[in-house]
Amino acid sequence: MTALTGLSLIAGNPVTGNGATTNAIDPSTGETLTPDYTFLDETQVEQAVDAAKRAFATYRATTPEERAAFLETIAANIEAVREPLVERAMAETGLPSARLNGEVGRTVGQLRLFAEVVRTGNFHGSSIDPAQPDRTPLPRLDIRQRRVPVGPVVVFGASNFPLAFSVAGGDTASALAAGCPVIVKAHNAHPGTGEIVGQAITDAVASNGLNPGVFSLVFGSGASVGQQLVADSRIAAVGFTGSRSGGLALQATAQARKVPAPVYAEMSSINPVILLDGALGGDGARGLAEQFITSLTGSSGQLCTAPGLVLVPNGSAGDAFAEAVGELISQQTGQTMLTPSIAEAFDRGVAELAAQDDVSTLGTGTAGAGANAPAPVVFTASSASLRENDALSEEIFGAASLIVRYTDADDLIATLAGIEGQLTSTIHATEADIAVAGQLLPVLEDLCGRILFNGWPTGVEVGHAMVHGGPFPATSAPATTSVGTLAIDRFLRPVSYQAVPAALLPEPIADDNPWSVVQTIDGVVTTPAEASTLSGAGASAS
Amino acid sequence: MTALTGLSLIAGNPVTGNGATTNAIDPSTGETLTPDYTFLDETQVEQAVDAAKRAFATYRATTPEERAAFLETIAANIEAVREPLVERAMAETGLPSARLNGEVGRTVGQLRLFAEVVRTGNFHGSSIDPAQPDRTPLPRLDIRQRRVPVGPVVVFGASNFPLAFSVAGGDTASALAAGCPVIVKAHNAHPGTGEIVGQAITDAVASNGLNPGVFSLVFGSGASVGQQLVADSRIAAVGFTGSRSGGLALQATAQARKVPAPVYAEMSSINPVILLDGALGGDGARGLAEQFITSLTGSSGQLCTAPGLVLVPNGSAGDAFAEAVGELISQQTGQTMLTPSIAEAFDRGVAELAAQDDVSTLGTGTAGAGANAPAPVVFTASSASLRENDALSEEIFGAASLIVRYTDADDLIATLAGIEGQLTSTIHATEADIAVAGQLLPVLEDLCGRILFNGWPTGVEVGHAMVHGGPFPATSAPATTSVGTLAIDRFLRPVSYQAVPAALLPEPIADDNPWSVVQTIDGVVTTPAEASTLSGAGASAS
Repeated sequence: MTALTGLSLIAGNPVTGNGATTNAIDPSTGETLTPDYTFLDETQVEQAVDAAKRAFATYRATTPEERAAFLETIAANIEAVREPLVERAMAETGLPSARLNGEVGRTVGQLRLFAEVVRTGNFHGSSIDPAQPDRTPLPRLDIRQRRVPVGPVVVFGASNFPLAFSVAGGDTASALAAGCPVIVKAHNAHPGTGEIVGQAITDAVASNGLNPGVFSLVFGSGASVGQQLVADSRIAAVGFTGSRSGGLALQATAQARKVPAPVYAEMSSINPVILLDGALGGDGARGLAEQFITSLTGSSGQLCTAPGLVLVPNGSAGDAFAEAVGELISQQTGQTMLTPSIAEAFDRGVAELAAQDDVSTLGTGTAGAGANAPAPVVFTASSASLRENDALSEEIFGAASLIVRYTDADDLIATLAGIEGQLTSTIHATEADIAVAGQLLPVLEDLCGRILFNGWPTGVEVGHAMVHGGPFPATSAPATTSVGTLAIDRFLRPVSYQAVPAALLPEPIADDNPWSVVQTIDGVVTTPAEASTLSGAGASAS
Repeated sequence: MTALTGLSLIAGNPVTGNGATTNAIDPSTGETLTPDYTFLDETQVEQAVDAAKRAFATYRATTPEERAAFLETIAANIEAVREPLVERAMAETGLPSARLNGEVGRTVGQLRLFAEVVRTGNFHGSSIDPAQPDRTPLPRLDIRQRRVPVGPVVVFGASNFPLAFSVAGGDTASALAAGCPVIVKAHNAHPGTGEIVGQAITDAVASNGLNPGVFSLVFGSGASVGQQLVADSRIAAVGFTGSRSGGLALQATAQARKVPAPVYAEMSSINPVILLDGALGGDGARGLAEQFITSLTGSSGQLCTAPGLVLVPNGSAGDAFAEAVGELISQQTGQTMLTPSIAEAFDRGVAELAAQDDVSTLGTGTAGAGANAPAPVVFTASSASLRENDALSEEIFGAASLIVRYTDADDLIATLAGIEGQLTSTIHATEADIAVAGQLLPVLEDLCGRILFNGWPTGVEVGHAMVHGGPFPATSAPATTSVGTLAIDRFLRPVSYQAVPAALLPEPIADDNPWSVVQTIDGVVTTPAEASTLSGAGASAS
């Protein structure tokens, strides 16, 4: 790896921005890190968009093998710079080495999973309604459907996942897999991390012989460069992970365009965890309290799925849980948060929650020795207070949580019904709780995108069945997920083909199915294995 | 069938509105039809929303068989009133009997197709990533995904499909199939037609023993009752077919809510038809001109997919086509349009287009004998004019079209690139045109939702592979379709289930797959047939 340059990467070219400069800051010391990163001006940003638009025609036409190989090259390139990458990310984010090494693994795993998705080809949504020339009163024409990529995508990286949800993160991987060029607006909290990964992608574009406009990494402020990108009519979709205010500002811009574009924003969630009586039975309370503290304080609580609300029954078992939590949180030491402004926002949120009527402090840890390492804290309140005061269910990004005591199942359900949309909801239950858990299930299905039993919401598996999404304000697009293979759906659009000549039919809906994808035939899902059995049977009969 | 009442139907109860009244008008005579229809006030509308919200819990839990039987009962109930229904629809819309009888067929066919969709169950999106307890460094938990209905849906019927896209039309059928209660805001241009169909649904709700809140039909103005419905936080999604201004107004309201809701609006399209040289060869020009006039003037041109723009090459073959069109359109007589205001808007649009520089009239037919039957008309202009003046590509709802002459393939592609998003695009081509058609294909994929060869865009097949959608402003949600079985996707949202006990898993993702749906297992699509083969093999081996 060569030294960091502080430059944007526009369609393969390192570019010195004509605007202001910024620097990374080591949040554990407050120290400014070199080099300076220069912000692009409007004309320079325009060049990245223009290049992405021009690259779309050839990139969308790549074969599954070409596209998959490209994603795998990015993964290999990132692995090749793992050490300097983790070192720089540690300095820029304050996150520990083990966490960041794990995140490298998740990032490259994600890229390889999407390579598999591209090769398998379920995402094409191939569907064929064959002609019925003899149908009465009117014959039916041959109609086929597949999904096409939407066009250039802009990705805003997340501060809290400098690798897995930043430059080569889930949004980028899924958009590239769909056939969309990507422009990443680099996160200014980890610019060097962004540059290293951006160079890995840029190198992969070149070594795979793709149009350089397939990828650009641009530095600038969110209010100017970010807004300019989202306002540009050539940008077809936007992926964002961050604050509610940030996501809503981008969405307003995208909606105000002459041709609006979707902004897939993952914004805020307090991830209610419900403890039922059975789970607190025996010596359950202590173990659950330990698990809760581990889930809450990991990564300084800076996870979208951190448990910000725990619903605990009144009574002695619930008291034992609360008491254990109070004791355990008091023993915790604050870890460095990602940036000084995130640490300030945490302090502000904690002060606001502490000042609410009927909210009391269950326990407070100790601030860390370094800078920006505020003390973890857990508050408590009654379910009635939560229902009456929306301030109690606002997200505090960091290691702060609220334990809310409920009276019975009806009270629990009424309390949940008053909460905003969430990424996750969790039930802790035993066999004895199964009836209540069954009552809760449809309530939670309406409330969130992922329901967990007897676990903790932090830690999001990147698989085929994962949903990291949920009703507003958890996300701006509740029908989608930003983690897992279905994230690709956000960047595709169906097109149907009526009586199109065989010579012109795209591969996923061609009769000979050259890419061996699943095809729905007249509404019946037909796997490649089934299709070959069918055609084999036909061949032997002829 | 009993006599029309003029009442709304709120959760099974006929309700006299407390607001103003309206009447249907026979557009062929201008005559007012009885009875009076009373508009609901705010409190009454509130009752319909409240009933829908309360009905959601039980309706979403219906089995496939219960939901399919309900849809089939609606179809049978509509068929049972076919004669009076068609008679009233003729009086209210001016559409001919054959067209309306065909529309009854399409409407009941759609309902039965969605019953099949419910029984087949592909829409559940069932996906299972089994646990991997031995995975390192961390074990994988069992994660499953299915889609759940979003909640109560409001449907705004279309004026131009008083049956197939109104009270029991595609939006209603797909929302009910998804498990969502439906409130239809009745179209005031065909209130009696709406009432008859609304009663058919209401009867089906009762005879199938469903919660009456599953369906309501409400009368009122769009500006008050329509806006109130869309502004209500309990409404989870909106289906709309109509004007661009109407769709955008509803969308603005839904976006301004504290919790925004998607508005699936199908709005405007001019459906470019491209004639390539080969197709005009021999005596192709005359035949194409005849087909064009038939497609343009059917249903008075009041179809979302009417060919409002035909791109024709310069040269003698193109001249012959234009000449034939001019001759044929002059022989056409205007047919009654749906409403006086639609006829007025048509006249206005025609006058505006005629007044544009570089637009000349190719031929004008004769106005019909009755009221509201303006003369069909075809204009012509150059491709350069179309590119320079957006007024030339604005939709005129009715039998008016513009023939634009292009110079060569590059000119054609540049012209298409300047057009707004469309529902359809059509290419007329022969073998000789295949190279140019191949160049056009990706351009049209970016432009529209359905590409046709050697046909005409009017007539939308209701099947599994159909897309009736496309980039803005054709629709507000380009990733969706409002016609065909995938229309159900608009009313569903994925949820994932992590380590949920087997006893609580919803049927579509249960191990024993009691509904025999397609399940994706670890990313591999597995049909019920394959699954039974697998489990059969397992059984014989044990």
